[in-house]
Amino acid sequence: MSKKIIYSTRPFRDEFISQINHIAPGYMWCTEIAPSQVSDVEIMIGWDKELADELLSEHASLSWVQAISAGVDYLPLEKFSERSLLLSNASGLHADSISQHVLATILCDYRGIRKAILNQKVQLWKDDSITYHSLENTNIVIVGTGKIGQRLAELLYPFGPNIFGINTSGHTVSHFKKVYPLNQLLDFLPSMDIVINILPLTDETTGLYNAEFFSSMKKEASFINVGRGPSVNTGDLIDALNKKQLRFAALDVFEEEPLPKNHPLWSMENVLITPHSSGMTPNFQEKFMKIFLENLKSYTKTRLISMNQVNLRKGY
Amino acid sequence: MSKKIIYSTRPFRDEFISQINHIAPGYMWCTEIAPSQVSDVEIMIGWDKELADELLSEHASLSWVQAISAGVDYLPLEKFSERSLLLSNASGLHADSISQHVLATILCDYRGIRKAILNQKVQLWKDDSITYHSLENTNIVIVGTGKIGQRLAELLYPFGPNIFGINTSGHTVSHFKKVYPLNQLLDFLPSMDIVINILPLTDETTGLYNAEFFSSMKKEASFINVGRGPSVNTGDLIDALNKKQLRFAALDVFEEEPLPKNHPLWSMENVLITPHSSGMTPNFQEKFMKIFLENLKSYTKTRLISMNQVNLRKGY
Repeated sequence: MSKKIIYSTRPFRDEFISQINHIAPGYMWCTEIAPSQVSDVEIMIGWDKELADELLSEHASLSWVQAISAGVDYLPLEKFSERSLLLSNASGLHADSISQHVLATILCDYRGIRKAILNQKVQLWKDDSITYHSLENTNIVIVGTGKIGQRLAELLYPFGPNIFGINTSGHTVSHFKKVYPLNQLLDFLPSMDIVINILPLTDETTGLYNAEFFSSMKKEASFINVGRGPSVNTGDLIDALNKKQLRFAALDVFEEEPLPKNHPLWSMENVLITPHSSGMTPNFQEKFMKIFLENLKSYTKTRLISMNQVNLRKGY
Repeated sequence: MSKKIIYSTRPFRDEFISQINHIAPGYMWCTEIAPSQVSDVEIMIGWDKELADELLSEHASLSWVQAISAGVDYLPLEKFSERSLLLSNASGLHADSISQHVLATILCDYRGIRKAILNQKVQLWKDDSITYHSLENTNIVIVGTGKIGQRLAELLYPFGPNIFGINTSGHTVSHFKKVYPLNQLLDFLPSMDIVINILPLTDETTGLYNAEFFSSMKKEASFINVGRGPSVNTGDLIDALNKKQLRFAALDVFEEEPLPKNHPLWSMENVLITPHSSGMTPNFQEKFMKIFLENLKSYTKTRLISMNQVNLRKGY
């Protein structure tokens, strides 16, 4: 009988392969795979769309998928459920990077740095169109109070804003002044200066940010999306920005990625576009392997995983 | 006898003029002044270079100058001293704005936002030249541990860096891991990831950042100047950046301001230029008047000021 396979869609350093061999000596590590081997893959790191049918077939050995991302909306969760697969995500790993990214986009806008960068290109010193803001006493709502939202609130706290949170049930979380359930978001939206979306993509959050939402925002407010592109109705957002229903948007995720050439967002002056880079994490391998190796230890002993298991029904 | 004058180089809202009239009813408030009135100016807000000779003449009534800035290097301090003038600065007022500016420039660089802003202009999504950094465990030295330095350290703290400080004597300050005297800066500079200058301009700090300094920096390090332009030998900095002795510089102040057209700094890819905007403060009038009105109360009673008095010999 052939050895069971751990198939990873991306390479890791030798030091980690050694640890994997030590913990799970009965498994073979592959980052490339022959068609005849697919049915022997028992553990996957990342996901391989092209092999999805085979990996999920009745004859496959696949048992556990360790995703590289926090959100797992791009995976065929229903089929995972039918096949009773274990799924773990990389939640927490990106919390620091994404929070730093969000603060970067806010401060960059509030302190006029974005315009200064463009002005530098044309050697322009004085620019009276820039207004300078401070985070002190601003009202910020973080939509999604998971690991990223909590870390973000912790970093924002000393700047002195009022930090509000939104989560499914409205349960309280530290560093937040008050937390509301999602269905109350529109009630207090009109007094918010900054809205930050970090929610995973689910049926409930698809198209959540639409014309009705944007029309309730403060004219001076900013909208930041580091969650998932399809949570935003992009056409509605563009309309709202053009109508000046809000002042500024910083978008890291889009309905279509990469954002297509000549998409109207590219050239909007009140939009900052980043290429789904908020989660880019230095020392990614160390941080990811902390989760994977912990789960691998547990899996080899009990066939269960101990960290970051995704509820396949909820989708996060 | 004519009324004594409070001459302000910039206008303030009526609500503040009322308070001034209430505290000091014997004084006339002016934001424009006739030549015949200069000798009656007893209190100044800001400084008027063109009237300097008259304001400082033997026959002048000038007694107290309330500067609008934290640094007062641009004032004729020796003459102030000869005429025994009182001088107060606006130290503290800009602490929040300048700290937020510094964090904006650091995060903007660390999270690849600066390049993303330029890439957006040309609709470029993928840019493999960007490396992403995190502030966690970086070594940061804040040169100048006054109000701005302390506020900056407080904002940086939750990001998890090691924050070192430099001040004249090496006395300890909260949020700093360790504080050194200025003459020890070169000793630990080689292990610093970010160097931030906030020092006032004095004889000791003029040209402090020179070829010797930059050649001791880490290749991957950043240099940020929100202090004063002449603390940096600009030619040496440009050489060092070209030789890749450091990775990045964010400059808000320059030896000559505005930075002249076609100055080589404008087009350097590893330099971020902002137009001496770090101190731009929303609600400036409220914050400034807190200092001025407090001093005015004290001055009308005792001819002494109670806040932010500058030591004319030290220059800060």
